[in-house]
Amino acid sequence: MASERPTITTVAERAKVSRQTVSNVLNAPHRVQPETRARVHAAITELGYRPHRAARQLRTGRSNLIAMRMQPFSEDDAGSVLDRFVHAVAESGELLGFRTLVFTATDDDAEIANYTDLLDSYELDAFVLTGTHHRDRRTSWLRKEGVPFVTFGRPWGVRAKHWWVDVDGKTGTELATERLLDAGHRRIGFVGWPVGSGVGDDRRSGWENSLRAAGVDPSRLVAVGENSVADGYRCATELVTRRHVEALVCVSDTLALGALAMIRDRTSRGEPAVPVIGFDDSPGAAAMGLTTVAQPLREAAATCVRLLTDYLDHGTDEPTAQHQILLAPHLVIRSSG
Amino acid sequence: MASERPTITTVAERAKVSRQTVSNVLNAPHRVQPETRARVHAAITELGYRPHRAARQLRTGRSNLIAMRMQPFSEDDAGSVLDRFVHAVAESGELLGFRTLVFTATDDDAEIANYTDLLDSYELDAFVLTGTHHRDRRTSWLRKEGVPFVTFGRPWGVRAKHWWVDVDGKTGTELATERLLDAGHRRIGFVGWPVGSGVGDDRRSGWENSLRAAGVDPSRLVAVGENSVADGYRCATELVTRRHVEALVCVSDTLALGALAMIRDRTSRGEPAVPVIGFDDSPGAAAMGLTTVAQPLREAAATCVRLLTDYLDHGTDEPTAQHQILLAPHLVIRSSG
Repeated sequence: MASERPTITTVAERAKVSRQTVSNVLNAPHRVQPETRARVHAAITELGYRPHRAARQLRTGRSNLIAMRMQPFSEDDAGSVLDRFVHAVAESGELLGFRTLVFTATDDDAEIANYTDLLDSYELDAFVLTGTHHRDRRTSWLRKEGVPFVTFGRPWGVRAKHWWVDVDGKTGTELATERLLDAGHRRIGFVGWPVGSGVGDDRRSGWENSLRAAGVDPSRLVAVGENSVADGYRCATELVTRRHVEALVCVSDTLALGALAMIRDRTSRGEPAVPVIGFDDSPGAAAMGLTTVAQPLREAAATCVRLLTDYLDHGTDEPTAQHQILLAPHLVIRSSG
Repeated sequence: MASERPTITTVAERAKVSRQTVSNVLNAPHRVQPETRARVHAAITELGYRPHRAARQLRTGRSNLIAMRMQPFSEDDAGSVLDRFVHAVAESGELLGFRTLVFTATDDDAEIANYTDLLDSYELDAFVLTGTHHRDRRTSWLRKEGVPFVTFGRPWGVRAKHWWVDVDGKTGTELATERLLDAGHRRIGFVGWPVGSGVGDDRRSGWENSLRAAGVDPSRLVAVGENSVADGYRCATELVTRRHVEALVCVSDTLALGALAMIRDRTSRGEPAVPVIGFDDSPGAAAMGLTTVAQPLREAAATCVRLLTDYLDHGTDEPTAQHQILLAPHLVIRSSG
């Protein structure tokens, strides 16, 4: 078989073109007329000629493949936002010549098992991680193995030793809270996650800061729940009917959509509306008219890819401030608050 | 350089393990203790040993890579559903040893340009296509080039010459319409897309069939719009206030969420509720309590991957009925209808 392996020359002969034209079809297809390109592709297919990626990789030392996990299949909106982030990474990667491979995993260990298999099987250049959290085993594993990576999300609770991009959640909830303060509200409640999640605590701190700066004691204005519409409804009920809050800032759109459903049920009984602001600008937020804090997902993805390129070009320097980038979110104003 | 290329033997020496252990780490990592695995990975990293994928591919003749386009970055929910389909394909593919590469494209031509580049660069085994439509140039290109593929979506308006999986939209809207008929409604309106889209016409035909079977003339009970919440609101206004429909079936959740917003505005003014049923079971549907027709996305993805495996194993037979699979949707009952 080895002696019959097709070469660029046999492809050129079959397609009745020069070797340079075959090379152009492979490396600069835009330079070749579509008809010629189709003929060369037909010859390649017929002959089973397939040396391209290996040859390119030999030249550059890179596979130009990056990989990232897709979030678990879920009903809620948070998953949708990270799916859009995958799309944005694929798009940004393509502009710099990278392709993006996706995989699924149920936890850190399963994700690490995927790293091993992907590195062995496809010689990936790098990984993009999402969903960083306390005691994140993935980043320590990758550092130990010397595998390039960038995280979308800070390294929570440990000394920051890797390259990352994140969105400033604290600033986001400050923007939301200040909007409600400006509208004259004082008792502004927070629907959050239980203490201990990096992202959740960060977002909560912005609301807390803004209230304290305005001279309002935030200590009895919080209700927490899991990230579900039902818990949003329940938390809003508690804060509005028992704690008499005048407005709500929520740690996520999923909780905010539950809160908003509760407020709308209430207004349909003739009671006054209570403004609600969410976090994430998920698809459901637009449909529901939810005012929300939007993450700049495309900018975050482009920054991740740029950092990866820097990392691959300039090796494994310890990260400095320019490799740890916090992006600003912005408010998307709709009818809810 | 070539003579210094690391081998499985040099990796084994560096890691102080047998060659078999190195092979196990690469091909059956679960058989190897984590500590040993880490040592072998460290040796691989230090030596830059990277022959694995090429070797595997030489053995099997396959790259075990499939690719699919991610839908454009959009505000609406339809994109979310297809993102979840990408996740499901990745998950199903992993069970059969495939990895999934994603790419972005703005139209058919851009998607075809991606095929060319991906085939040249990564020696893909096959493609999964979504969003089939009339005059779909992608499928004719792939057939001409002899590239294996499966589509999630029928070949609309042409003789079916390829392998596909789809969900029966007509049955979906029949289920929705019959639910509303069973509840005693007769004048059931349809919020649709303009005539001419395969998916939209198929979904509309189910509603029309069910109404005719019940002796109701559907001809003046349709309003059409683009796939936006705003158009859903507008279509519902026209059908409810001017055509006096008693219930609404919608071609998509995006339109249904707009319709539902209109109905809720109306009930908040004391007018009676009008049931609304959507299509897709998107994230916003759960948040809004929208009754909707759900596509079995995981089953569709698993079927696509199974068909691809059959195709790769058994070559390029002309498709028969068992390669063209229509899956049944089901209703997800929530509060809206």
